[in-house]
Amino acid sequence: MKKSNIIRNIAFFCLIGACAALTLASPALAQAQARDPLPSFNEGPAKQAIVSFVQKVTDKSSPAYAPPGDRIATFDQDGTLWVEHPLYTQAMFALDRVHELAPKHPAWKTEQPFKAVLANDREAMAGFTEQDWAKIMGATHSGMTTEAFLKTAQDWLAKARHPRFKRPYTELVYQPMLEVMQYLRTNGFKTYIVTGGGQEFVRVFSEQVYGVPPEQVAGSSIATKYEYQDGNPVLMRLPKVFFIDDRAGKPMGINLFIGKRPLAAFGNSGGDREMLEWTQAGSGARLMMLVLHDDAKREYAYGPAEGLPDTKVGAFSQALLDEAQKRNWVVISMKKDFKKVFAWE
Amino acid sequence: MKKSNIIRNIAFFCLIGACAALTLASPALAQAQARDPLPSFNEGPAKQAIVSFVQKVTDKSSPAYAPPGDRIATFDQDGTLWVEHPLYTQAMFALDRVHELAPKHPAWKTEQPFKAVLANDREAMAGFTEQDWAKIMGATHSGMTTEAFLKTAQDWLAKARHPRFKRPYTELVYQPMLEVMQYLRTNGFKTYIVTGGGQEFVRVFSEQVYGVPPEQVAGSSIATKYEYQDGNPVLMRLPKVFFIDDRAGKPMGINLFIGKRPLAAFGNSGGDREMLEWTQAGSGARLMMLVLHDDAKREYAYGPAEGLPDTKVGAFSQALLDEAQKRNWVVISMKKDFKKVFAWE
Repeated sequence: MKKSNIIRNIAFFCLIGACAALTLASPALAQAQARDPLPSFNEGPAKQAIVSFVQKVTDKSSPAYAPPGDRIATFDQDGTLWVEHPLYTQAMFALDRVHELAPKHPAWKTEQPFKAVLANDREAMAGFTEQDWAKIMGATHSGMTTEAFLKTAQDWLAKARHPRFKRPYTELVYQPMLEVMQYLRTNGFKTYIVTGGGQEFVRVFSEQVYGVPPEQVAGSSIATKYEYQDGNPVLMRLPKVFFIDDRAGKPMGINLFIGKRPLAAFGNSGGDREMLEWTQAGSGARLMMLVLHDDAKREYAYGPAEGLPDTKVGAFSQALLDEAQKRNWVVISMKKDFKKVFAWE
Repeated sequence: MKKSNIIRNIAFFCLIGACAALTLASPALAQAQARDPLPSFNEGPAKQAIVSFVQKVTDKSSPAYAPPGDRIATFDQDGTLWVEHPLYTQAMFALDRVHELAPKHPAWKTEQPFKAVLANDREAMAGFTEQDWAKIMGATHSGMTTEAFLKTAQDWLAKARHPRFKRPYTELVYQPMLEVMQYLRTNGFKTYIVTGGGQEFVRVFSEQVYGVPPEQVAGSSIATKYEYQDGNPVLMRLPKVFFIDDRAGKPMGINLFIGKRPLAAFGNSGGDREMLEWTQAGSGARLMMLVLHDDAKREYAYGPAEGLPDTKVGAFSQALLDEAQKRNWVVISMKKDFKKVFAWE
């Protein structure tokens, strides 16, 4: 996803914890995939593009054959694998943390941006600047050890519910995309999450929810410091950005964390443009896909048809759609291509 | 390995290329390991510690049993997996690059530290400061795309020879340590290289030489910039340090790149102290080992017996030996424990 200007800073500070989780490795899904690798997709160009790509790169007689070690697929998370509206999950986490930490910070009652958060002043929050979000992230995501942050995130994910769907955030993952990940893995791919969000936040639930182990999550991060607590070594989280894995940061992050160019990349907004471009610039068969949010009834609609500015969180602008068409990036329409959006539907 | 003060800056700038390579996955080794998992080790406490650790963590009835996803082993490279004397390989590469690039930089003839390198002035080179090395690394490791650097490193590794052993550097890997890596992998471990050296340099040959794919190499790195050359996206290497994966940077790097705490860690000097400490601080069975260079005849001797200061490259100081004994870190004596040092002996 693309992080808007306003909310960009929310993206990097994280580490969280396990969850209810739709387990992808369920016997039911495996069985369904034996008959149809993508049962939650409608027939159409998106499904066709995925199946045809996988066939090409796994067929030894194909000129596009790729050995298993080269089979790398990267997935953006927010808006590509799970719901990112009305605000993405990590922002929700940060706002809840402000409420939780408030008793320790009496000054927040009169100090912005905390005052607005504590007063649930939605209008003021909608106008938060990058600096406001940076303050919120700094106050809620650092100043603790990596282990303490993990526990905090786990606890929050276990009890937090999405305002519209009234379910744990970890149940708001797109079933068709889980099937794409599983289908690729079945065909020898290593699936990676490459997120503008916090690497450590996503690692908390990536294995349970997506079948992606922590070492295959690349994301934004804050700096840590090695120190001692009661003689035991800890990594203390500092209120200082280390790496932003978004936009041009995505190819950089891919190079840093994987060291191989993906054969397939999946995103949903301008924040993923460079990742798709970098993927396509490799030789041989490549698959570049963008999830288009055009289904207000089952999820949300915030694509070109809605005319949202490019700065709006996750917005899929007309310019991006034009580029996708020009470059043969395949658009997945949630409305047309998703037979089912969530596993629990 | 520990990077000395003088030479610390040499450690991070890299990306290199394939090599002659001792392939670890050779049928001969696999066959030998079926009878004895560590045929190039003499019987003794080091070998015993490795075998006993592996048995404990893979035995489901053992209280120390660890599921496969937790089986992470991290290895320092310079001095732990391959020869680091008289200077480590990447420094050799940098010095050769200065000679190669000199025609494009006529000013170097009179400008230090380049003048000393071009004159092969060993005395002056021995006195190089951190700043001198930083200049050399900046001039030789950046200002090109990641792909161009890869090619440069590959070409160099193919033709460079070690001054004493007269062999490609990639043949100067310790056969017993290759066996440890293979033995761990056979038992469900993911083996990682965690190096103070350049991540991209090591990735060039890690798979062929150690059986470790690029995505399992964590190391020091320089910053990159995403830009376009003739319309194609490239990652340009900048003369700017991004991350130093040495000393306290090793636990940070492990957290960043793996997100799991190792069950076993292998090093050879003060630069690995924090990695071993971090490994040991986890619960359950853990294995911490240090390779001691005490065999001047077959390799080099630069341990406590030689009384080298802690700042000497890779020096294994008396203080580190004392700490190892106090904490039950197991010392591997090259002289006593290595039946064979190199595969070609």
